[in-house]
Amino acid sequence: MVPAGNPTEETIRALASLLAGNDVIIDGGNSYYKDDVRRAGELKPRGIHYLDVGTSGGVWGLKHGYCLMIGGERPIFERLEPAFKTLAPPDGYAYMGGHGAGHYVKMIHNGIEYGLMQAYAEGFELLHASAFQLDLAAIAHLWNQGSVVRSWLLELAELALRADPRLEGIKGYVEDSGEGRWTVEDALEKNVPAPTIALSLFGRFRSRQGDPFADRMLAALRNAFGGHPLRKSGPGGP
Amino acid sequence: MVPAGNPTEETIRALASLLAGNDVIIDGGNSYYKDDVRRAGELKPRGIHYLDVGTSGGVWGLKHGYCLMIGGERPIFERLEPAFKTLAPPDGYAYMGGHGAGHYVKMIHNGIEYGLMQAYAEGFELLHASAFQLDLAAIAHLWNQGSVVRSWLLELAELALRADPRLEGIKGYVEDSGEGRWTVEDALEKNVPAPTIALSLFGRFRSRQGDPFADRMLAALRNAFGGHPLRKSGPGGP
Amino acid sequence: MVPAGNPTEETIRALASLLAGNDVIIDGGNSYYKDDVRRAGELKPRGIHYLDVGTSGGVWGLKHGYCLMIGGERPIFERLEPAFKTLAPPDGYAYMGGHGAGHYVKMIHNGIEYGLMQAYAEGFELLHASAFQLDLAAIAHLWNQGSVVRSWLLELAELALRADPRLEGIKGYVEDSGEGRWTVEDALEKNVPAPTIALSLFGRFRSRQGDPFADRMLAALRNAFGGHPLRKSGPGGP
Amino acid sequence: MVPAGNPTEETIRALASLLAGNDVIIDGGNSYYKDDVRRAGELKPRGIHYLDVGTSGGVWGLKHGYCLMIGGERPIFERLEPAFKTLAPPDGYAYMGGHGAGHYVKMIHNGIEYGLMQAYAEGFELLHASAFQLDLAAIAHLWNQGSVVRSWLLELAELALRADPRLEGIKGYVEDSGEGRWTVEDALEKNVPAPTIALSLFGRFRSRQGDPFADRMLAALRNAFGGHPLRKSGPGGP
Repeated sequence: MVPAGNPTEETIRALASLLAGNDVIIDGGNSYYKDDVRRAGELKPRGIHYLDVGTSGGVWGLKHGYCLMIGGERPIFERLEPAFKTLAPPDGYAYMGGHGAGHYVKMIHNGIEYGLMQAYAEGFELLHASAFQLDLAAIAHLWNQGSVVRSWLLELAELALRADPRLEGIKGYVEDSGEGRWTVEDALEKNVPAPTIALSLFGRFRSRQGDPFADRMLAALRNAFGGHPLRKSGPGGP
Repeated sequence: MVPAGNPTEETIRALASLLAGNDVIIDGGNSYYKDDVRRAGELKPRGIHYLDVGTSGGVWGLKHGYCLMIGGERPIFERLEPAFKTLAPPDGYAYMGGHGAGHYVKMIHNGIEYGLMQAYAEGFELLHASAFQLDLAAIAHLWNQGSVVRSWLLELAELALRADPRLEGIKGYVEDSGEGRWTVEDALEKNVPAPTIALSLFGRFRSRQGDPFADRMLAALRNAFGGHPLRKSGPGGP
Repeated sequence: MVPAGNPTEETIRALASLLAGNDVIIDGGNSYYKDDVRRAGELKPRGIHYLDVGTSGGVWGLKHGYCLMIGGERPIFERLEPAFKTLAPPDGYAYMGGHGAGHYVKMIHNGIEYGLMQAYAEGFELLHASAFQLDLAAIAHLWNQGSVVRSWLLELAELALRADPRLEGIKGYVEDSGEGRWTVEDALEKNVPAPTIALSLFGRFRSRQGDPFADRMLAALRNAFGGHPLRKSGPGGP
Repeated sequence: MVPAGNPTEETIRALASLLAGNDVIIDGGNSYYKDDVRRAGELKPRGIHYLDVGTSGGVWGLKHGYCLMIGGERPIFERLEPAFKTLAPPDGYAYMGGHGAGHYVKMIHNGIEYGLMQAYAEGFELLHASAFQLDLAAIAHLWNQGSVVRSWLLELAELALRADPRLEGIKGYVEDSGEGRWTVEDALEKNVPAPTIALSLFGRFRSRQGDPFADRMLAALRNAFGGHPLRKSGPGGP
């Protein structure tokens, strides 16, 4: 697996120098879809074809299957279709459209994923904070039996909560890997609101901050106009 | 089915007057969990027991199963457990805790549901707006084959998009039925952030407004400081 | 100054027992406006009048003036108007409407205040994070000279940034005092979206949390589907 | 005034061809700050200097003053300082930092402006929806007398509400002019949360949509799982 960005870029260049006309390069990672469009254009004069393939299914793919979102020229897709048929579970691959369409659809998939995860996280935090002393893993299991919110992510939540019922051994430090940002940028480009996807991403940023400047400014302002007491930062502070 | 609120309240009162000690009233609707606590307390001196049962599974429940979240006194739950076992699919019912716990868990379930739906809606709006001219139903179907975002809601999205690929026959007027508001109020009570659930609810409010005062004020302010042109309201306006 | 809620309630009861018909009780604190309506109704049979008066201006009120938002019966307001005229700066008081209107308008004032503060805080955090190494106090001062975002809050920001240019001595622990929550509840009651006011409030909740359950759940889910590494909580964690 | 983007780009190129070494080009519009950095670099080999100057104050600038945020090489700023001193009100200009710093600070200024406007708009919509039948212009005027939320934007709100007390003649169609988007992109680049600024921008996008796909999808999903009735789109719909 080659990381998206420069490593992929260099690999493709190296590969292209070894390939002959009518060969096909498949980028099966999480490249930015605009890079696909550019790369396909660069390879075209040399007769080299390019497919962008987004994959979803996570590390469970081998066991539970996964799906492939494929972009590029349709005839090239059709030439390679037998390979996709072999690799993917039934109905587990599809042609999405021209160059970049595969990674574009994967990008939006990940944006949605951020929002879904955040919705579960908020709900379970409320359950966790409840005075009812709820069994969160049991609730996740129950909801997976026919409820409206049943999903694969909820099955994973059930496993995580079985292993550590109050998630006490985990630090709430939440990384992101690019597709969420691209989704928000896409919303900006298209004049389409994407409020909960953007907030889910910002929540991850927030999880990685210690004591954000914004909050210090709010505390300073409250103190300035209302005389509300300030907490001092540093080891002596609360 | 009796609507939550006053109709349920009156039904329970009428019912209670007909019941004898050790009888059990089950509220299987979407009552507010604090009402359960109060009602159970009112019925107790008369020896009448009360269980609050949240149900999820929608109109598909009969076909695909559903699940029951049950609150009340545990011995009463155990007495009636054979009935729940008969009604629900395997593992499709569980005891959540004391009075109100069943409806509390159902309330949070619905809050999560709002957030999940909103995440899909934002993502599909971006796909819809894409120049790739994507087949949204095909994408929903593909994602349901092993992707991270697969879920029952996504299966419903697939059905809806198969029936009306660009949802052109549907008006985007989105009701809400109370549990989402209660979830946000619960977050306020508990000092727990629930940003995407709250936004999902506010988005529904917005879908029911014509030309909101807030937007008219923004347009007026832009005109006031920047001389940006205003659009006139009314039939002559754009 | 008597805190809102029970202390105010008891003070009013004690006071009412000492008052005669046609006397007037003024609640000049931050009571919930629905409490005003109830109290005025309770006092009415005894001939005691009630005005609810919201005040804004903070601890700077004496120096820079403040304003009074007054609710109750108009004739009672007019009877006491000479006192308000004496207390407030010119144009610094006004009759808002019936019982509760004064505190209602003050409540919304505070909701807006949360949103304004959050907007400045986000903007200044971006300036703070910039590689340009900006002088934040100088920017606040400059913007206060005729820019579109000039305001009294920005003057306070300038003072705070002069005293501590990177706010290093302040902990970003941000309290809230009730009116923001009531504003969000008001939005829920009225089916009116209030997204940025709600988010500003949730941001304050977040500032008071250590390592929220929601973030731990997000980290657990990322680990579960993507094999993304987890950070362990506790002293050994990063 | 030359619009930002290509027109500015071409004007600068044309201008540069006419200038000699040690001349200075001032971009006093709303250019993207990264363009400033690039342009200054392009002009440097030819000995031409470049200052980027953000201006705020709106169409009221002549009457109420305005302020200038200036970026570029400090010696060039100092050479031209007498001109800035003449143009701007006292304290109404300042050197922000290297190339791009002037427009960067202006960009964040506008991002904050979006958030401030949205906070007022939400608050006034709640006042507007209140059963108290409030006089919104009178409230804006009162709040401008010493309240915590007093500001120049609130003075403009007062004027707008005096002219049209319920803003009935205005359509809530809210444009944006680029700096808000750049601010959100800046937040994405810097891993800094900017939730209310992003939401304010998305709210403007929303104000320009008729019946968004996202809302139609939510309605379709509610119908699919709950049998909730759908409204048909088109002239026959509600």
